[in-house]
Amino acid sequence: MQKIGKQTIKFDTPPTILETACIVGPKEANGPLAKFFDQCLDDEFWGESTWEKAESKIIKETVNTLISKSGISPAEIDYCFAGDLLNQCISSSFGLRDSNVPYFGIFGACSTFVEGLSLAAIFAEGFANNVLCATSSHFCSAEKQFRFPLELGNQRPPTAQWTVTGAGSAIVTKEGNGPFITYITPGKIVDMGIKDANSMGAAMAPAALDTLITHFKDTGRKPSYYDVIVTGDLGYIGKEILSDLAKQEGFDIKQNYDDCGVLIFDKEQQDTHSGGSGCACCGSVFSGYFFNQLRNKKIKNILLIATGALMNATSSQQGESIPGIAHAISIEL
Amino acid sequence: MQKIGKQTIKFDTPPTILETACIVGPKEANGPLAKFFDQCLDDEFWGESTWEKAESKIIKETVNTLISKSGISPAEIDYCFAGDLLNQCISSSFGLRDSNVPYFGIFGACSTFVEGLSLAAIFAEGFANNVLCATSSHFCSAEKQFRFPLELGNQRPPTAQWTVTGAGSAIVTKEGNGPFITYITPGKIVDMGIKDANSMGAAMAPAALDTLITHFKDTGRKPSYYDVIVTGDLGYIGKEILSDLAKQEGFDIKQNYDDCGVLIFDKEQQDTHSGGSGCACCGSVFSGYFFNQLRNKKIKNILLIATGALMNATSSQQGESIPGIAHAISIEL
Repeated sequence: MQKIGKQTIKFDTPPTILETACIVGPKEANGPLAKFFDQCLDDEFWGESTWEKAESKIIKETVNTLISKSGISPAEIDYCFAGDLLNQCISSSFGLRDSNVPYFGIFGACSTFVEGLSLAAIFAEGFANNVLCATSSHFCSAEKQFRFPLELGNQRPPTAQWTVTGAGSAIVTKEGNGPFITYITPGKIVDMGIKDANSMGAAMAPAALDTLITHFKDTGRKPSYYDVIVTGDLGYIGKEILSDLAKQEGFDIKQNYDDCGVLIFDKEQQDTHSGGSGCACCGSVFSGYFFNQLRNKKIKNILLIATGALMNATSSQQGESIPGIAHAISIEL
Repeated sequence: MQKIGKQTIKFDTPPTILETACIVGPKEANGPLAKFFDQCLDDEFWGESTWEKAESKIIKETVNTLISKSGISPAEIDYCFAGDLLNQCISSSFGLRDSNVPYFGIFGACSTFVEGLSLAAIFAEGFANNVLCATSSHFCSAEKQFRFPLELGNQRPPTAQWTVTGAGSAIVTKEGNGPFITYITPGKIVDMGIKDANSMGAAMAPAALDTLITHFKDTGRKPSYYDVIVTGDLGYIGKEILSDLAKQEGFDIKQNYDDCGVLIFDKEQQDTHSGGSGCACCGSVFSGYFFNQLRNKKIKNILLIATGALMNATSSQQGESIPGIAHAISIEL
């Protein structure tokens, strides 16, 4: 590994994403990507008594599915990285408490999946054989925690996004035949003063822009190098903002750019206003859809930029703005 | 770097802890370690309007102090790791949002300082020159969030610990003259079914035991190898439990073992019941006291085991037990 440019890390012997897995909720099951997910749930509780317990079960079973699909035994997993949106990341710690694998808790809000994938790749090139990463989110537990009780039936503004119920996970392995993780560009915190907790796309787009441009400058690549550039959960509004800002900076990404929050729900049939969001948005769309596209050689590379809003309910109530972050990872055949 | 034994990472060219810094609150300023802290605050607000804003300011100013003491410029810091106890780790993200350094959010509850130090060391040996880690906690924001409103004047049971107000931080650098980070033993989640959120020491001690024993088995070292073995915040009760459990397993640590939560407050003059806790307990006691002891060659090595309880207020209300974790790092001259 080596640091190149301002903040990008280049892998000398790129680790392989051995396998991915994802489980999603009922709304995601009715979306256009349903056939790419490993399992779709019928309801938001999955037999549990609370949404938090359901979310823990989703991440736990996603990891079990992942290990089963990967063909390696749990004992062969050296380390894991996990995090989620619940206070103190309890979905991950409760979901993985029986895993018996050394555990690093991470918090990047909705950027957590790529943060985990990045750290897993660094461990794999450095000293580990197999490293697991996982993340989850849940519409009901997130609404309850960040906004209003669901029972209130509160009206959602047009800029609002719909937190994806589900989990995404991956195993990164030292030696393999790809898809390979070739570069990561960890992001800086960028806060442009947006204070509306119902306008996350706008709050996170400047962070995505900073990481996107830094990635291209550090690597010398152009947007056209990638078959797909995809952000985690900027949604319809944030996607427009990022496209426009990037063009102003001389990086035209309109041809090959999309957003997981735009892809996961049907705009007409499933009105979610500005699209999907949450750790599981990027996590499940990559683990389900894009990993499949790579494996079946429908695309040969992807720049995945997961975006996160690093606020909480208290900071919004105290009048604070929303710091954004975005981590980018380059995955190639 | 290489993985040895079950889960320990050995550094081939051990990175150096270049510098540390810490700022603490008024209660800590009246404790026995006051003279080792870089700054002691007169009150819990530090001129801010809320405890959360005060905590963010503490971590921000701790990092500023650290950079100033280190003699390197902020632009020379390649990456940073930070996390804290507030929901969605907002103390760290708000405190460091202006730092302009690529940011990895981590969450290990009170084990966060050693988790950050570990990841910083891995980055430094791998590809980075200078990596920063920081953590904070605040008595008032923690009580409000995890337990009861302070205004309630609630009675604390004898097993309760006192969350340290403060922040600890360190810069890990690729080349230097020590103190060197030679081994890390990242911990697994261990949950023995303890459900009392006012008995954290008991909940975390089994995780500390697991990591302690694994460290000795993986490295072939014995407890007597270390001048000091110190846990993060087991407090008086957890310290007793760990000592006893370790002895039962054939590792007698009574001679050289202590706990940051026991050290930071005076048992008689400052009755905190079972001692200190919080991310800043281990963070400030290491950054202040033990780093000073190493630098002045009063000790030649230390095994620092930070402990964390990976629960939240909702999980306790839902009747869940408390998963514990402990990460160990070996620091030597």
